[in-house]
Amino acid sequence: MALRSDWTGQACPIARGLDVLGDPWVVLILREVFAGNRRFGPLKQELGIADTVLSTRLAALVEHGLLAKRRYAGTARPRMEYVLTEKGLDTLPVLHALGMWGRKHTESPVEGPTLRIYCLVCGNESEHADWCVDCARPLTAGTTGWRRSRAPETLLELGELAR
Amino acid sequence: MALRSDWTGQACPIARGLDVLGDPWVVLILREVFAGNRRFGPLKQELGIADTVLSTRLAALVEHGLLAKRRYAGTARPRMEYVLTEKGLDTLPVLHALGMWGRKHTESPVEGPTLRIYCLVCGNESEHADWCVDCARPLTAGTTGWRRSRAPETLLELGELAR
Repeated sequence: MALRSDWTGQACPIARGLDVLGDPWVVLILREVFAGNRRFGPLKQELGIADTVLSTRLAALVEHGLLAKRRYAGTARPRMEYVLTEKGLDTLPVLHALGMWGRKHTESPVEGPTLRIYCLVCGNESEHADWCVDCARPLTAGTTGWRRSRAPETLLELGELAR
Repeated sequence: MALRSDWTGQACPIARGLDVLGDPWVVLILREVFAGNRRFGPLKQELGIADTVLSTRLAALVEHGLLAKRRYAGTARPRMEYVLTEKGLDTLPVLHALGMWGRKHTESPVEGPTLRIYCLVCGNESEHADWCVDCARPLTAGTTGWRRSRAPETLLELGELAR
Protein backbone atom coordinates (compact mmCIF):
# COMPACT_ATOMS: atom_id res chain seq x y z
CA MET A 1 0.00 0.00 0.00
CA ALA A 2 0.94 3.64 -0.15
CA LEU A 3 2.34 3.67 3.35
CA ARG A 4 5.72 5.02 4.26
CA SER A 5 6.97 1.68 5.56
CA ASP A 6 6.73 -1.80 4.08
CA TRP A 7 5.65 -4.43 6.57
CA THR A 8 4.99 -7.24 4.12
CA GLY A 9 8.13 -9.09 5.22
CA GLN A 10 7.45 -8.90 8.96
CA ALA A 11 7.14 -12.07 11.00
CA CYS A 12 4.29 -10.51 12.99
CA PRO A 13 0.90 -11.01 11.30
CA ILE A 14 -0.40 -7.81 12.92
CA ALA A 15 2.28 -5.85 11.06
CA ARG A 16 1.53 -7.67 7.81
CA GLY A 17 -2.18 -6.96 8.29
CA LEU A 18 -1.40 -3.28 8.80
CA ASP A 19 0.50 -3.20 5.54
CA VAL A 20 -2.89 -3.36 3.83
CA LEU A 21 -5.37 -2.33 6.53
CA GLY A 22 -3.34 0.35 8.32
CA ASP A 23 -4.85 3.05 6.17
CA PRO A 24 -8.07 4.72 7.34
CA TRP A 25 -9.47 5.23 3.84
CA VAL A 26 -8.97 1.58 2.99
CA VAL A 27 -11.02 0.54 6.02
CA LEU A 28 -13.76 3.07 5.33
CA ILE A 29 -14.01 1.95 1.70
CA LEU A 30 -14.35 -1.65 2.90
CA ARG A 31 -17.07 -0.53 5.34
CA GLU A 32 -19.00 1.04 2.46
CA VAL A 33 -18.67 -1.99 0.20
CA PHE A 34 -19.85 -4.23 3.07
CA ALA A 35 -22.92 -1.97 3.27
CA GLY A 36 -23.57 -2.37 -0.46
CA ASN A 37 -22.01 0.86 -1.68
CA ARG A 38 -20.06 -0.56 -4.61
CA ARG A 39 -19.59 2.16 -7.21
CA PHE A 40 -17.13 5.00 -7.61
CA GLY A 41 -19.57 7.94 -7.59
CA PRO A 42 -21.59 6.89 -4.53
CA LEU A 43 -18.41 5.88 -2.66
CA LYS A 44 -16.92 9.27 -3.38
CA GLN A 45 -20.04 11.06 -2.23
CA GLU A 46 -20.50 9.01 0.92
CA LEU A 47 -16.88 9.23 2.02
CA GLY A 48 -16.20 12.83 0.97
CA ILE A 49 -12.97 11.61 -0.55
CA ALA A 50 -10.92 13.08 -3.40
CA ASP A 51 -11.03 11.24 -6.74
CA THR A 52 -7.33 10.45 -6.69
CA VAL A 53 -7.39 9.16 -3.10
CA LEU A 54 -10.37 6.94 -3.84
CA SER A 55 -8.99 5.57 -7.10
CA THR A 56 -5.57 4.87 -5.53
CA ARG A 57 -7.14 2.97 -2.65
CA LEU A 58 -9.54 1.04 -4.89
CA ALA A 59 -6.66 0.03 -7.15
CA ALA A 60 -4.63 -1.10 -4.13
CA LEU A 61 -7.57 -3.09 -2.74
CA VAL A 62 -7.96 -4.82 -6.11
CA GLU A 63 -4.22 -5.40 -6.40
CA HIS A 64 -4.12 -6.95 -2.93
CA GLY A 65 -7.12 -9.10 -3.75
CA LEU A 66 -9.61 -7.69 -1.22
CA LEU A 67 -11.91 -6.27 -3.88
CA ALA A 68 -12.73 -7.51 -7.36
CA LYS A 69 -14.03 -5.42 -10.23
CA ARG A 70 -17.28 -6.44 -11.89
CA ARG A 71 -19.03 -4.95 -14.89
CA TYR A 72 -22.54 -3.77 -14.12
CA ALA A 73 -23.38 -1.86 -17.32
CA GLY A 74 -22.02 -1.01 -20.74
CA THR A 75 -20.21 -3.15 -23.26
CA ALA A 76 -18.15 -0.79 -25.42
CA ARG A 77 -17.44 1.31 -22.32
CA PRO A 78 -18.05 -1.02 -19.41
CA ARG A 79 -19.00 0.50 -16.06
CA MET A 80 -17.45 -1.26 -13.12
CA GLU A 81 -18.37 -1.86 -9.52
CA TYR A 82 -16.37 -3.36 -6.66
CA VAL A 83 -17.25 -6.50 -4.74
CA LEU A 84 -15.57 -8.09 -1.76
CA THR A 85 -13.55 -11.24 -2.29
CA GLU A 86 -13.14 -13.82 0.48
CA LYS A 87 -9.97 -11.99 1.52
CA GLY A 88 -11.97 -8.77 1.72
CA LEU A 89 -14.91 -10.39 3.52
CA ASP A 90 -12.50 -11.69 6.16
CA THR A 91 -11.65 -8.13 7.22
CA LEU A 92 -15.05 -7.84 8.93
CA PRO A 93 -13.68 -8.56 12.46
CA VAL A 94 -11.18 -5.70 12.04
CA LEU A 95 -14.04 -3.31 11.25
CA HIS A 96 -16.10 -4.66 14.13
CA ALA A 97 -13.22 -4.41 16.61
CA LEU A 98 -12.54 -0.82 15.56
CA GLY A 99 -16.24 0.00 15.85
CA MET A 100 -16.58 -1.55 19.32
CA TRP A 101 -13.59 0.41 20.54
CA GLY A 102 -14.80 3.62 18.90
CA ARG A 103 -18.25 3.19 20.42
CA LYS A 104 -16.89 2.65 23.92
CA HIS A 105 -14.05 5.14 23.96
CA THR A 106 -14.87 8.06 21.68
CA GLU A 107 -17.65 10.58 21.80
CA SER A 108 -20.43 10.20 19.30
CA PRO A 109 -21.95 13.31 17.74
CA VAL A 110 -25.38 11.65 17.71
CA GLU A 111 -27.43 10.06 20.49
CA GLY A 112 -27.74 6.33 20.83
CA PRO A 113 -25.78 3.55 19.16
CA THR A 114 -24.80 4.36 15.60
CA LEU A 115 -23.62 1.01 14.25
CA ARG A 116 -25.40 -2.03 15.58
CA ILE A 117 -24.19 -5.49 14.70
CA TYR A 118 -26.57 -8.45 14.55
CA CYS A 119 -26.20 -12.17 14.20
CA LEU A 120 -28.54 -13.16 11.38
CA VAL A 121 -28.76 -16.73 12.71
CA CYS A 122 -30.27 -15.92 16.12
CA GLY A 123 -31.21 -12.29 15.48
CA ASN A 124 -29.46 -11.00 18.60
CA GLU A 125 -27.28 -7.96 18.71
CA SER A 126 -23.57 -8.74 19.04
CA GLU A 127 -20.90 -6.91 20.98
CA HIS A 128 -18.05 -9.09 19.77
CA ALA A 129 -15.87 -8.81 16.71
CA ASP A 130 -16.23 -12.26 15.19
CA TRP A 131 -18.36 -14.51 17.40
CA CYS A 132 -22.01 -14.64 18.34
CA VAL A 133 -22.00 -15.53 22.02
CA ASP A 134 -25.73 -16.27 22.00
CA CYS A 135 -25.77 -18.99 19.37
CA ALA A 136 -22.04 -19.81 19.71
CA ARG A 137 -21.20 -19.44 16.03
CA PRO A 138 -18.67 -17.41 14.09
CA LEU A 139 -19.93 -14.01 13.04
CA THR A 140 -18.93 -13.78 9.39
CA ALA A 141 -20.11 -11.57 6.55
CA GLY A 142 -22.63 -14.27 5.69
CA THR A 143 -24.18 -14.24 9.17
CA THR A 144 -23.88 -10.55 10.05
CA GLY A 145 -26.35 -7.71 9.74
CA TRP A 146 -25.74 -4.04 10.42
CA ARG A 147 -28.08 -1.23 11.33
CA ARG A 148 -26.59 2.20 10.68
CA SER A 149 -27.76 5.41 12.32
CA ARG A 150 -28.87 7.02 9.07
CA ALA A 151 -31.51 4.32 8.53
CA PRO A 152 -31.80 2.32 11.77
CA GLU A 153 -34.94 0.54 10.58
CA THR A 154 -32.99 -1.14 7.75
CA LEU A 155 -31.14 -4.33 8.55
CA LEU A 156 -28.26 -4.57 6.07
CA GLU A 157 -27.49 -8.20 5.39
CA LEU A 158 -23.79 -8.00 4.63
CA GLY A 159 -23.42 -11.31 2.86
CA GLU A 160 -25.97 -10.25 0.25
CA LEU A 161 -24.78 -6.68 -0.13
CA ALA A 162 -21.06 -7.20 -0.37
CA ARG A 163 -20.93 -9.64 -3.24
CA MET B 1 -3.89 12.16 15.40
CA ALA B 2 -1.54 13.18 12.65
CA LEU B 3 -3.79 11.94 9.89
CA ARG B 4 -4.84 13.98 6.93
CA SER B 5 -8.52 13.79 7.80
CA ASP B 6 -10.34 14.32 11.09
CA TRP B 7 -12.91 11.63 11.82
CA THR B 8 -13.60 12.53 15.45
CA GLY B 9 -17.00 14.01 14.56
CA GLN B 10 -18.21 11.05 12.51
CA ALA B 11 -21.37 9.21 13.51
CA CYS B 12 -19.73 5.90 12.59
CA PRO B 13 -17.71 4.44 15.48
CA ILE B 14 -15.43 2.65 13.00
CA ALA B 15 -14.40 6.03 11.60
CA ARG B 16 -13.92 7.47 15.09
CA GLY B 17 -11.83 4.46 16.02
CA LEU B 18 -9.69 4.97 12.93
CA ASP B 19 -9.04 8.55 13.95
CA VAL B 20 -6.76 7.13 16.65
CA LEU B 21 -6.03 3.58 15.48
CA GLY B 22 -5.83 4.15 11.72
CA ASP B 23 -2.09 4.63 11.91
CA PRO B 24 0.18 1.59 11.60
CA TRP B 25 2.84 2.90 13.99
CA VAL B 26 0.25 3.52 16.68
CA VAL B 27 -0.94 -0.08 16.48
CA LEU B 28 2.60 -1.49 16.47
CA ILE B 29 3.53 0.64 19.51
CA LEU B 30 0.46 -0.71 21.31
CA ARG B 31 1.50 -4.24 20.36
CA GLU B 32 4.91 -3.68 21.92
CA VAL B 33 3.50 -2.18 25.12
CA PHE B 34 1.10 -5.14 25.41
CA ALA B 35 4.17 -7.38 25.20
CA GLY B 36 5.88 -5.45 28.02
CA ASN B 37 8.11 -3.21 25.90
CA ARG B 38 7.43 0.05 27.70
CA ARG B 39 10.45 2.33 27.25
CA PHE B 40 11.58 4.67 24.51
CA GLY B 41 14.92 3.07 23.66
CA PRO B 42 13.73 -0.54 23.44
CA LEU B 43 10.59 0.53 21.54
CA LYS B 44 12.73 2.41 19.06
CA GLN B 45 15.05 -0.56 18.61
CA GLU B 46 12.29 -3.13 18.29
CA LEU B 47 10.23 -1.13 15.82
CA GLY B 48 13.08 0.35 13.78
CA ILE B 49 11.29 3.67 14.01
CA ALA B 50 12.71 7.19 13.82
CA ASP B 51 12.89 9.17 17.09
CA THR B 52 10.51 11.84 15.89
CA VAL B 53 7.94 9.34 14.62
CA LEU B 54 8.04 7.42 17.88
CA SER B 55 7.85 10.49 20.11
CA THR B 56 4.96 11.94 18.07
CA ARG B 57 2.99 8.71 18.31
CA LEU B 58 3.69 8.23 22.01
CA ALA B 59 2.59 11.80 22.72
CA ALA B 60 -0.61 11.23 20.73
CA LEU B 61 -1.31 7.96 22.54
CA VAL B 62 -0.88 9.75 25.89
CA GLU B 63 -2.99 12.70 24.73
CA HIS B 64 -5.79 10.36 23.62
CA GLY B 65 -5.58 8.48 26.90
CA LEU B 66 -4.46 5.06 25.60
CA LEU B 67 -1.09 5.22 27.30
CA ALA B 68 -0.04 6.80 30.59
CA LYS B 69 3.47 7.88 31.52
CA ARG B 70 5.02 6.47 34.68
CA ARG B 71 8.35 7.23 36.31
CA TYR B 72 10.55 4.18 36.66
CA ALA B 73 13.85 5.82 37.74
CA GLY B 74 15.40 9.14 38.60
CA THR B 75 14.06 11.99 40.68
CA ALA B 76 15.81 15.15 39.48
CA ARG B 77 15.67 13.80 35.92
CA PRO B 78 12.88 11.24 35.99
CA ARG B 79 12.95 8.46 33.41
CA MET B 80 9.54 7.55 32.08
CA GLU B 81 7.90 4.46 30.72
CA TYR B 82 4.52 3.95 29.09
CA VAL B 83 1.70 1.76 30.40
CA LEU B 84 -1.66 0.94 28.90
CA THR B 85 -4.76 2.54 30.36
CA GLU B 86 -8.14 0.82 30.22
CA LYS B 87 -8.76 2.66 26.95
CA GLY B 88 -5.48 1.28 25.62
CA LEU B 89 -6.10 -2.23 26.93
CA ASP B 90 -9.44 -2.26 25.12
CA THR B 91 -7.66 -2.04 21.75
CA LEU B 92 -6.60 -5.68 22.08
CA PRO B 93 -9.39 -7.04 19.83
CA VAL B 94 -8.27 -4.67 17.06
CA LEU B 95 -4.73 -6.09 17.25
CA HIS B 96 -6.07 -9.64 17.35
CA ALA B 97 -8.40 -9.10 14.39
CA LEU B 98 -5.55 -7.62 12.35
CA GLY B 99 -3.31 -10.50 13.32
CA MET B 100 -5.89 -13.17 12.42
CA TRP B 101 -6.40 -11.57 9.03
CA GLY B 102 -2.67 -11.15 8.46
CA ARG B 103 -2.03 -14.75 9.40
CA LYS B 104 -4.70 -16.09 7.04
CA HIS B 105 -4.21 -13.78 4.08
CA THR B 106 -0.58 -12.68 3.90
CA GLU B 107 2.58 -14.63 3.42
CA SER B 108 4.79 -15.11 6.46
CA PRO B 109 8.56 -14.96 6.04
CA VAL B 110 8.97 -17.63 8.72
CA GLU B 111 7.51 -21.11 9.05
CA GLY B 112 4.72 -21.88 11.45
CA PRO B 113 2.42 -19.53 13.37
CA THR B 114 4.17 -16.39 14.52
CA LEU B 115 1.73 -14.90 16.99
CA ARG B 116 -0.29 -17.35 19.01
CA ILE B 117 -3.09 -16.14 21.26
CA TYR B 118 -4.08 -18.06 24.37
CA CYS B 119 -6.90 -17.84 26.87
CA LEU B 120 -5.22 -17.82 30.27
CA VAL B 121 -8.38 -19.15 31.93
CA CYS B 122 -8.60 -22.45 30.04
CA GLY B 123 -5.15 -22.46 28.47
CA ASN B 124 -6.44 -23.09 24.96
CA GLU B 125 -5.26 -21.28 21.89
CA SER B 126 -7.79 -18.80 20.51
CA GLU B 127 -8.57 -17.92 16.93
CA HIS B 128 -11.02 -15.17 17.78
CA ALA B 129 -10.49 -11.50 18.44
CA ASP B 130 -12.20 -11.05 21.78
CA TRP B 131 -13.86 -14.27 22.90
CA CYS B 132 -12.62 -17.63 24.08
CA VAL B 133 -14.97 -20.13 22.47
CA ASP B 134 -13.73 -22.95 24.68
CA CYS B 135 -14.56 -21.48 28.06
CA ALA B 136 -17.11 -18.98 26.70
CA ARG B 137 -15.56 -15.90 28.27
CA PRO B 138 -14.37 -12.56 26.95
CA LEU B 139 -10.74 -12.54 25.91
CA THR B 140 -9.39 -9.36 27.50
CA ALA B 141 -5.87 -8.22 28.28
CA GLY B 142 -6.29 -9.76 31.74
CA THR B 143 -7.12 -13.19 30.33
CA THR B 144 -4.89 -13.25 27.23
CA GLY B 145 -1.44 -14.67 26.67
CA TRP B 146 0.72 -14.36 23.58
CA ARG B 147 3.53 -16.49 22.25
CA ARG B 148 5.68 -14.67 19.70
CA SER B 149 7.89 -16.36 17.14
CA ARG B 150 11.12 -14.93 18.53
CA ALA B 151 10.60 -16.78 21.84
CA PRO B 152 7.78 -19.29 21.34
CA GLU B 153 8.49 -20.99 24.67
CA THR B 154 7.58 -17.82 26.58
CA LEU B 155 3.94 -17.20 27.36
CA LEU B 156 3.52 -13.44 27.68
CA GLU B 157 0.73 -12.70 30.14
CA LEU B 158 -0.56 -9.42 28.75
CA GLY B 159 -2.40 -8.23 31.83
CA GLU B 160 0.80 -8.36 33.85
CA LEU B 161 3.08 -6.93 31.18
CA ALA B 162 1.01 -4.03 29.97
CA ARG B 163 0.44 -2.22 33.25
